[in-house]
Amino acid sequence: MNQLHRPIAIGALVAGSLALCTAKAVAQDQLADMTKDANQWVMTGRTYDLQRYSPLTQINATNVKNLHAAWSFSTGTLRGHEGNPLVIGSVMYLHSSFPNKVYALDLSKPGAPQIWQYTPEQDANVIPIACCDVVNRGLAYHPSGKLYIELLQGDLLALDAKTGKKIFQVKSADFHKGETMTNAPLVVKNVVLTGISGGEFGVRGRITAFDAMDGHELWRGYSTGPDADVKISGTPNANYPSMQGKDLGVSTWQGDEWQHGGGTTWGWYSYDPKLNLFYYGSGNPGTWNPDQRPGDNKWSMTIWARNPETGEVKWVYQMTPHDAWDYDGVNEMVLFDTKDGKKLLVHFDRNGFGYTLDRTNGKVLVANAYGPVNWAKSIDLTTGRPVEDASKRTTAKGNTEGICPAAIGFKDQQPSAYSPKTGWSYVPTNNICMDYEGVEVKYAAGQPYVGAIVRMFPGPGGNRGAFIAWDPTVGKIMWSDKEGLASYGGALATAGDIVFYGTMEGWLKAVDAKTGKLLWQYKTPSGIIGNPMTYVGPDGKQYVAVLSGIGGWAGIGVAAGIGAEDPTAGLGALGAFGDAGSFSTQGGVLTVFSLDSPGTAAK
Amino acid sequence: MNQLHRPIAIGALVAGSLALCTAKAVAQDQLADMTKDANQWVMTGRTYDLQRYSPLTQINATNVKNLHAAWSFSTGTLRGHEGNPLVIGSVMYLHSSFPNKVYALDLSKPGAPQIWQYTPEQDANVIPIACCDVVNRGLAYHPSGKLYIELLQGDLLALDAKTGKKIFQVKSADFHKGETMTNAPLVVKNVVLTGISGGEFGVRGRITAFDAMDGHELWRGYSTGPDADVKISGTPNANYPSMQGKDLGVSTWQGDEWQHGGGTTWGWYSYDPKLNLFYYGSGNPGTWNPDQRPGDNKWSMTIWARNPETGEVKWVYQMTPHDAWDYDGVNEMVLFDTKDGKKLLVHFDRNGFGYTLDRTNGKVLVANAYGPVNWAKSIDLTTGRPVEDASKRTTAKGNTEGICPAAIGFKDQQPSAYSPKTGWSYVPTNNICMDYEGVEVKYAAGQPYVGAIVRMFPGPGGNRGAFIAWDPTVGKIMWSDKEGLASYGGALATAGDIVFYGTMEGWLKAVDAKTGKLLWQYKTPSGIIGNPMTYVGPDGKQYVAVLSGIGGWAGIGVAAGIGAEDPTAGLGALGAFGDAGSFSTQGGVLTVFSLDSPGTAAK
Repeated sequence: MNQLHRPIAIGALVAGSLALCTAKAVAQDQLADMTKDANQWVMTGRTYDLQRYSPLTQINATNVKNLHAAWSFSTGTLRGHEGNPLVIGSVMYLHSSFPNKVYALDLSKPGAPQIWQYTPEQDANVIPIACCDVVNRGLAYHPSGKLYIELLQGDLLALDAKTGKKIFQVKSADFHKGETMTNAPLVVKNVVLTGISGGEFGVRGRITAFDAMDGHELWRGYSTGPDADVKISGTPNANYPSMQGKDLGVSTWQGDEWQHGGGTTWGWYSYDPKLNLFYYGSGNPGTWNPDQRPGDNKWSMTIWARNPETGEVKWVYQMTPHDAWDYDGVNEMVLFDTKDGKKLLVHFDRNGFGYTLDRTNGKVLVANAYGPVNWAKSIDLTTGRPVEDASKRTTAKGNTEGICPAAIGFKDQQPSAYSPKTGWSYVPTNNICMDYEGVEVKYAAGQPYVGAIVRMFPGPGGNRGAFIAWDPTVGKIMWSDKEGLASYGGALATAGDIVFYGTMEGWLKAVDAKTGKLLWQYKTPSGIIGNPMTYVGPDGKQYVAVLSGIGGWAGIGVAAGIGAEDPTAGLGALGAFGDAGSFSTQGGVLTVFSLDSPGTAAK
Repeated sequence: MNQLHRPIAIGALVAGSLALCTAKAVAQDQLADMTKDANQWVMTGRTYDLQRYSPLTQINATNVKNLHAAWSFSTGTLRGHEGNPLVIGSVMYLHSSFPNKVYALDLSKPGAPQIWQYTPEQDANVIPIACCDVVNRGLAYHPSGKLYIELLQGDLLALDAKTGKKIFQVKSADFHKGETMTNAPLVVKNVVLTGISGGEFGVRGRITAFDAMDGHELWRGYSTGPDADVKISGTPNANYPSMQGKDLGVSTWQGDEWQHGGGTTWGWYSYDPKLNLFYYGSGNPGTWNPDQRPGDNKWSMTIWARNPETGEVKWVYQMTPHDAWDYDGVNEMVLFDTKDGKKLLVHFDRNGFGYTLDRTNGKVLVANAYGPVNWAKSIDLTTGRPVEDASKRTTAKGNTEGICPAAIGFKDQQPSAYSPKTGWSYVPTNNICMDYEGVEVKYAAGQPYVGAIVRMFPGPGGNRGAFIAWDPTVGKIMWSDKEGLASYGGALATAGDIVFYGTMEGWLKAVDAKTGKLLWQYKTPSGIIGNPMTYVGPDGKQYVAVLSGIGGWAGIGVAAGIGAEDPTAGLGALGAFGDAGSFSTQGGVLTVFSLDSPGTAAK
């Protein structure tokens, strides 16, 4: 962990100052300052804006063909591996799928040996409660030297980044009620923001904020219920009449269904330090059977802007009122500014539309389909509501066939990247459609509350996914690379004019940012549903790292060993992606790449 | 699986002829003929002599520094991965640890996608019966297109190599009695030779031979008991008086202890087609407590030469009479001929001596220590017996301290290589010593029958292993590369003047065959206890492949998650190699290397 010889001054300064930090002394923007050092990767999306963009250029479109594996590391768990490691100073921090092991690896030594590892003790009874594999999307770091991970069983765990010793572990969710935790927390100043999963168990979605130092709860903001619970004090969204009024989180539901109303919060969170707002999406309303919950079901399927310190809602925007397709709105909001200073966000929703919003006020500027959507013709920019095709609205009265996209969306958890250099988003997508039939279901705490039978299948063209470039200012696909299976891992864009993404077969690919041309690929041990990231090691060389480890919703067939006999199994994923073992094998492995000859590691 | 474009004629001919083969039509030496094609790797040691030597030279001492990972594949299981894949034509066949999955991978396509996979159904109750992790040492192939694997629960399984469909599965061992199966079978003509594990459960070791076509039992030869059971008809060993006489497998035991006498057969088997003899070693006598079994305990700790078709013993040679240290004799016999035509074998025993024998008659020519042995001063070449240091002979009357080597030997399962080019053996070794105290134990079927408390610790110098070159004609170390941990994976020597071996930390290393100089290394995802192998792919390029996946006896701390608080845990391995997770993490991954730029895989 010798920081003195690091070539980049900012990294050295930040790391060197850690020892001096106390809780109170942490500068308001210290974590934001750390993101200015492109050599490090200190939060899940590298920067608060979730652009997953690196200014590094050592590896670029010209030389990426010479990239090769530099070292590799097994996480010791088999199930699906979403997310990506962090690099702080000369240490890499890595998480695993359940039971959410955490590792610190010493990048200053050949092969990056372990500094410490921590295996949380968790109740294995939580495993069947996780709807779509026992994934975890990664760690968050606080400049006082703390790491945070959300444990599947419902705890926020804080570790000492230097020693791996537990600092605190606080209960936030109760898996006996179907509440689990899978997403990467977001640290803003001294606040740790966490979400919950469990939309298939009739949970009530919320964000819970904890004090970064001792883990005491600071606030909780629900997705459904009275404004006081939701933390709405003003007009929810001044742009759209249907999003104005009091307690819409109650009145847009029948009876007390809002109490089991879903709106989970397991996606990626972004943050704008100047506006002091963080952005995230809420998931499906419970149940999946729309006939059981007349109304808009606010605020499921919604984009949120909240104050991280108080939880106060600045604005909300509901994308899919009265969802009938499980089009969770949890996908990430990527923040970017236009050259003329507009503060925007771009979001690729499960419902198949790519939205560009004014992030100061929740007004939709662009909303175009980024795949062959047929459940809605368009998004009406005046009302903010979709213009539906009535024949594709599902019901419990019968099976509705041939809906595009499927419940898993044209994009699910796999985070997109945005390059300020090209001004484009890079989006890993699914091309999956479905048949959907609502089913009457009764709520019982901790029992599945799905209420639908879904059969998923490849969309038009037969390819099950594509990796696309998208201009968010006009809402247009700039190029598209077809994939045999879904691109169910995240994207990484770099100033080297290349974009990285993974495939469910296990290929990590580098493509030209301007044309999508395949420049390089490597077959990792297992299917990739994690996110590539990049950093500069203590040796001054740029590395690219990616977790492989098939699983997640798309890979549940392999992860849970389910055969493809029943295409509705795995909430429909088996029909979409085929049977266990047909395209990949289980196992969590980080593979790290560089341009350097591995032979030079022999010293 | 397009064979037509393979550059090597022999491989193409052999593969092309498979369809025409019937059981009876299989030429006597067809498998031996296939080994003449250096592009393939058709049996565990590449050739019947177990030399693990490849004539390939594309990758050599000059260019190995440019070697890098070409692709990788997760086996989908976490426990220790011993053994190595086979390559036949353009297909790689790979096994995993329990439950002994088998994969066929298509080498003619980028990233070697699966052709088929087979997961045997096994009784999970066998897991605690495996003394030292639930490893498997690999597959055997028959030219009629069949693959064989020994299942941990005690079955021989035959699969159709083309389709992965089961051909037969026959029971050979009963794990309820402590008998398990872990070793790689050996195919000789139409015979499949199998062994058993379970020396810690008072089993009775034996070789069982099965018909390769339908799996019916051909013969069984025991390690202990009457000559009729052992299949000795003549003089056991004409060279040594103590190895002459009738029914020594009974008379060298007290009472009926020979019925629980161990002598298991889980090592690697070699075969000499001209002599029509196969060679293997037998393991420890049961129990580990020597006071309970006075006598030489024949034929435990013995080198065997048998006829593969009849089981008839040609000769035996007992290395460690009346074992008091668990110095299993199972390590491989590597066959080689001298320039003047002597037919020899070399064997590195757990007892710390490297033996060179005349393999026609079992006469010891050389027996020298290959590590800091102290339990015996030498092997008396006249009597064939060790000259013991009485102070290191263990007993149940007290703890005997500071014995070298430890029970795990200066070498255990990790197979050595032999280069006919240098005339040297390349030997991965442990440097571990021990304290040992016998304990009275009663036999009960299926219960542990260990009878000793063993504490293992690093040997002189503190390094826990080394990789050495050895001249077997004189019994001398030619060079030695120290390792921090044991070199618990196998070795591969090539005509490119390089030798490959793996480490428990996960490094695959290439060293200069003449000097031992480190030329290249790569950090695989997990510790290596498997064996590197090499082949030429359908693209005409040489590849090197190795399984990583920490475990086995040495890695049981990591594999079974045992802490190091009790150094006698894991039959002493915890004291020797430290606690769970300190040096590696679990996960079975095959990594395949080439000189080719991975960027060219982008097509």
